[in-house]
This record gives sequence, C-alpha cells and structure tokens, in this order.
Amino acid sequence: MEFSSKLLERAVNEMSQLPGIGKRTALRLVLHLLRQPKEQTLALSEALQAMRNDIKFCKSCYNISDSDVCDICSNKSRNEQLICVVEDVRDVMAIENTSSFRGLYHVLGGKISPMDGIGPHDLNIEPLVEKVKNGQVKELIFALSSTMEGDTTNFYIYKKIQDYNVTTSTIARGISVGDELEYADEITLGRSIINRVPFEATLKL
Amino acid sequence: MEFSSKLLERAVNEMSQLPGIGKRTALRLVLHLLRQPKEQTLALSEALQAMRNDIKFCKSCYNISDSDVCDICSNKSRNEQLICVVEDVRDVMAIENTSSFRGLYHVLGGKISPMDGIGPHDLNIEPLVEKVKNGQVKELIFALSSTMEGDTTNFYIYKKIQDYNVTTSTIARGISVGDELEYADEITLGRSIINRVPFEATLKL
Repeated sequence: MEFSSKLLERAVNEMSQLPGIGKRTALRLVLHLLRQPKEQTLALSEALQAMRNDIKFCKSCYNISDSDVCDICSNKSRNEQLICVVEDVRDVMAIENTSSFRGLYHVLGGKISPMDGIGPHDLNIEPLVEKVKNGQVKELIFALSSTMEGDTTNFYIYKKIQDYNVTTSTIARGISVGDELEYADEITLGRSIINRVPFEATLKL
Repeated sequence: MEFSSKLLERAVNEMSQLPGIGKRTALRLVLHLLRQPKEQTLALSEALQAMRNDIKFCKSCYNISDSDVCDICSNKSRNEQLICVVEDVRDVMAIENTSSFRGLYHVLGGKISPMDGIGPHDLNIEPLVEKVKNGQVKELIFALSSTMEGDTTNFYIYKKIQDYNVTTSTIARGISVGDELEYADEITLGRSIINRVPFEATLKL
C-alpha cells in the first residue's frame, strides 16, 4: 500500500496492529476519524491512554477494576466461599449478566497454552491455590472454555488443590435452551445424556 | 453491558464509535491493548492524534498530504491537462497502484447524497469547475463508483462544465479480467457488449 502521507501511514500501521484489523480496515477507520470533528479522535486516544495507564487489577480476584479491590470482591452480600474460575473479564461480565451467581470470581488471565507460550506461571493460578490453602474456599467452579487448553488448565489447578478440603465443579455442558436436538453436535448431546438432571430439579427453575 | 471499570467502559465506548466496530469487538480490541506493553497503546493514540491534528489536504487536488501541495501534483513529469475525478484518497491509492495513469487527480471528498445530507457544496466541486474554466484541463475522467450517487455527482459536474472546451470520459465498466461470463451480472455484461473495443486495441496492452 502506497500512502500519500507519512502521518496517515503511521496511523494506519498502528491501527492494523489490533487483532482482526487489516490494513484496509485500518485505512477505512482512520479516514472515518479524519471526516469527524477533531474532538472524537482526541477523546478516543485519551480514553485508550487513560485506560492503559490507570486501570487496576483487583488484588483479590484479578478482575479489571478502578480500585484496589473490585466491586464484586468488596460486596459483603456475596458468598466468598464460592469461587468461579474464569479466563478473563468478558467471562465475568457474561456470568454477572445472568444474575445466577452470588459468589466471587477468580480471573486467571488466560489458559495454559504451550503453543502460544503461555505456561501456568503466566497466569494467576498461584494466588488461587493460596486462597484454597488458607481454607477460605469451600467450592471452586471451573468456567473455562471447553477446549484442550481449558481442560488442561482445569486439570492443572485440580491437581494443585486436590489434597485440600475443597469441592470442585465445572459448569454444565449440554444443549442450549431452545435448541433442537438434531442440530446439536454428538459430544455435547452425549454429555447432556450422561449428565442428565432429575426432572423435579428443572421444575424449580 | 455491565463494566467493572469506568476507564474500561470509556475506552470501549470511544472505540465502538468507529464504523463497523460494535461493543463486543471494541471490548476485544481494548482487552488486547491491555495485554500488550503500554508503549503500543501510546504509539496508537499518538499516531491518531498526530494524524488528525497535522494532516493537510493538497491545495490543488485535495488529496491527503503532508505538504501544501501533494507529491503527485508537484511531480512535473505528470500530465496536468488530464484530471481523474475520484471520491477519496483510497481511490487515488488504487489507481496509483495500477501504474496506468500519468495525469493528476481531483479528490471530491465524497458523492452527492441527499439521503446522507451531502450536497454539492459539501464536496470539492467548485475548485474543479474553476480549473476547467481557467482552461488548465483538456480531459476529465470520472472515476466515481457506479451507484446512483456516483452517477448523480458525475452528471452534476458534467452540467457545470459542458459549456467549456473540455473532453469528459468515465472509466470503462465491463467484465473483470479473468472472470467467467456466466457469473457476471446482466447490466455489466450488457454494457461490456455495447462498449466493446476493437480487438486490435487489446493486442497492444
């Protein structure tokens, strides 16, 4: 791509560093900013810098937060003996949206993935094991994605904590509510039969 | 979407102002920046601001440029009596990539589009008419997209300059080189038959 301006080229190059944004998309975005008032570009770049420089991670659960301890961890009405282990802040947001969970979270910051050079020590696993060792936790719910990396991470943590007095569970895998059986993949359908639940239990939901 | 941090929320909101970037994509991009070194976010926001504040538009052709007159307009080896009329800088880049055009450009900055509130006076049409009036131009090539807005803009400019001594042409519409006829739409195929070119002319390409 030949640019008529170095300033334009630099902006496009930086923009195209973002995942899923190629050179053409970056050019489209940057030209859009050029057509908008200067204030919009200023607001965007200030918001990004403020976020990158000032954002904190909760000391307890490692979720993104504006304060040292996040709103969820400092909420006394939540059950601090029940911890849901997730990959990142998006999972916290998704589970919070369900209003079905009143425990706390522990954000690992990723999954163990040797292919991407991410080992256990790159994740917030040690502080989680500490919490279990200290006897603060009664139940851990693993809510990682059901990929090989997610399963590996679950198993790694499980091995570290199995000698302590803590219950572990994983979120249920099964057919989505409203889905037709014929379109479900066989692994999910198979698991949903093996892990069937008493019919009476569904009446209470 | 419920955010655990105001800084994160602000960054996502600003990012999702960009065209084609929804809240979820914005969150993904912003979380990516959080995982990268601070320098990357700094470089991105500085590049965007520098571009928005310091970029210039060529006084002659209105292309994006770092100087008052762009490299193309100040290139003495180019034919300044031949002007290709385009919508924006991306079209200039696309035509320059072909190495088939040695004239100058005139960047309108958009198309006449009443639906979007863009009238002739929002575009750089007046300076183009001036160039024609001054007798600087022998031929105008209309290279706008072949939509209703593009055709309207072509016709508007044509009406303004038809009394002056200038040739006008539009780029050829036809079947793409390498395409199969059976997949072409009928309007393009029809035009390519009406505007057929002597076979000898293709032998020289």
